[in-house]
Amino acid sequence: MRKVSVIGAHEIKWGVLKEKPLLDMVSEAANKAITDAGIDRYAIQAIFLGNAFGEILTGQATLGSATANILGIPHVPSIRFECACSSGAIALREAFLNIAHGVYDYVLVVGVEKMNTKETPQILSAIATSFDFYDQKAGIVAPAVFALYASAHMKHFGTTKEQLAMVAEKNYYNGSLNPNAHYQKQVSLEEILNAPMIAEPLGRHDCSLVTDGAAALVLGPAETAKNYNSQPINILASAIAGDYYRVANRDSYVSFASTRIAARQAYEMAGVQPQDITCAETHDCFTITEIINIEDLGFFPKGEGGRAVQDGETRLAGRIPVNASGGLKAKGHAIGATGVGQVVEAVTQLRGKAGERQIKNVELFLTHMLGGSPSISVIHIFARGY
Amino acid sequence: MRKVSVIGAHEIKWGVLKEKPLLDMVSEAANKAITDAGIDRYAIQAIFLGNAFGEILTGQATLGSATANILGIPHVPSIRFECACSSGAIALREAFLNIAHGVYDYVLVVGVEKMNTKETPQILSAIATSFDFYDQKAGIVAPAVFALYASAHMKHFGTTKEQLAMVAEKNYYNGSLNPNAHYQKQVSLEEILNAPMIAEPLGRHDCSLVTDGAAALVLGPAETAKNYNSQPINILASAIAGDYYRVANRDSYVSFASTRIAARQAYEMAGVQPQDITCAETHDCFTITEIINIEDLGFFPKGEGGRAVQDGETRLAGRIPVNASGGLKAKGHAIGATGVGQVVEAVTQLRGKAGERQIKNVELFLTHMLGGSPSISVIHIFARGY
Repeated sequence: MRKVSVIGAHEIKWGVLKEKPLLDMVSEAANKAITDAGIDRYAIQAIFLGNAFGEILTGQATLGSATANILGIPHVPSIRFECACSSGAIALREAFLNIAHGVYDYVLVVGVEKMNTKETPQILSAIATSFDFYDQKAGIVAPAVFALYASAHMKHFGTTKEQLAMVAEKNYYNGSLNPNAHYQKQVSLEEILNAPMIAEPLGRHDCSLVTDGAAALVLGPAETAKNYNSQPINILASAIAGDYYRVANRDSYVSFASTRIAARQAYEMAGVQPQDITCAETHDCFTITEIINIEDLGFFPKGEGGRAVQDGETRLAGRIPVNASGGLKAKGHAIGATGVGQVVEAVTQLRGKAGERQIKNVELFLTHMLGGSPSISVIHIFARGY
Repeated sequence: MRKVSVIGAHEIKWGVLKEKPLLDMVSEAANKAITDAGIDRYAIQAIFLGNAFGEILTGQATLGSATANILGIPHVPSIRFECACSSGAIALREAFLNIAHGVYDYVLVVGVEKMNTKETPQILSAIATSFDFYDQKAGIVAPAVFALYASAHMKHFGTTKEQLAMVAEKNYYNGSLNPNAHYQKQVSLEEILNAPMIAEPLGRHDCSLVTDGAAALVLGPAETAKNYNSQPINILASAIAGDYYRVANRDSYVSFASTRIAARQAYEMAGVQPQDITCAETHDCFTITEIINIEDLGFFPKGEGGRAVQDGETRLAGRIPVNASGGLKAKGHAIGATGVGQVVEAVTQLRGKAGERQIKNVELFLTHMLGGSPSISVIHIFARGY
């Protein structure tokens, strides 16, 4: 198994991009990632693309083929992965494995989602297809599921609404420093706490954004990475694990089993401990999700995530900055693109090019997506390859 | 790279399965494939699933997670692949690669599609999402694209409507011998030729069926395969290639570039020649597709596919039987399931258990799917591993 590097990375400015066709989003992200890699596009041997709702929200499925065509490399293998929010991260994982084992040398990874194409009820219906069919019939939707987790976490560990709000406030602040973020304004704790309720105890500011976005990476063998980009980033670990898809099947609502299992595998693969991680992008579809994830990733003991946020440990200058990009909360949640966008942030931070939101002394960067009901976690760990 | 075997295979009876929920279809195919493999389900380390239209036609995306849940193995990684008609074949390919390179030992591959959930115009709209967005706007639909190929092939090589009809007649005959086929009746050449026109020169009987179906395979290392099933089937080659997604970008309408490129790779990987192949399942979404494919796969010289069909060379007792299962025409086309179903046929034939449609002296079995506009070909070659 050979080492794999990210040699090119790019994301477009995320937001509500009504005027920008889906394939223009892909084209911009992919072509600029190829330019960043300094690679001849004809050296790319496969395209692995993550997208969740193309057919429902844009009328375009089979986006692997579509991408190969617009990039002018129609004969390369192209695969579209759909695993809800984890779509992009899984495309990355499979590309990593294919290169690590010598199937391909250079693979383009793309994540894309165009969400704001219809009215809100139709967008929510599209998102609902990511949940178990019988759960859907029972009326389960994303805010309701995570409200369940929030209530349980508050009851078991005394986590407070203020601590949830502090996750949002931090991520809004980080997003205000990220020129690619969907939402680039700070929001006060008071405003967050006084927002209209969506699903008790989660208010409007506890929820992530409905975002259009695209991001792309060029991956290749670490051995030759520096022939292309002087700042390649190595992938030290790739891990994936599942959880019960039906919400009622789970025995705990204060922890995500898929996060715990994937984290253990990722740390073992990289040969590191949770406390070795410098900073992370983790799935904050709701504020409670970030709190539970930073516990399940091993950054803080179970039940102490809220306290850690309150103490500022996850802020840009804290012990372990989390979601420096603004996260799903402020950079935005372009479902199939988010997992690839997290890696663009990892690359940017590790290269020391994150501008005002640059984290100091970044060594090990972890990215984590949690998809489905939530039922599938994907984790990668990165370090400088130069 | 280690050798990989199919150690378990099963498909449900295909057809219009209005009363059978999507996940019941998956459950039956997967559980019986596991039983056929003689493996403990907890030994399965990943689920790779092909499905094209789950979210549009059944309201259920993220089918990897759904499958893991219903099989009682919720924590295994599960991935859903969407590449139009090639979805299932690509799930197989990636599973093969992951085992060949030691990422996993045992992987469950599932293909499933429930098509007959809505009225015909809605089903056709779902299928249309597999075509390029701008082609869709121009009114391009599957019968129109393949009518273009049929007209060009007739003009260049003198292929006749009778030869097209003979493909349908053969596949209906084969399907009449297959208890799992959607359509199990013979249809006379006269009836085929007199059917209502769909897109000149393709009549109703030149088109494949709109089918609900599911199929599953258990894959594992060849080295230990016989510990599970006394008749494992080895995978000698796996290949994939693309073509221009936009129909107008292509320079030829008498050949599928993706088929030619993938075939060359597959033969090289297996170390065989086209003439070594004993029999094949190939993508016959329309009768012309089978004629062009059997040329591009190298079974017959370019332009002689129609003549070969007319001479009976692709019939069950012919030189190279094609679509012994009945193909997409009679076994049916359950889009994301078809590529996996082809492999169930390969396994059944190689094991000598195909009953009335058993081909004599089967040694090398090739399966080929052509997905998208058509823009992506996936080819596998199989042989007995016992």
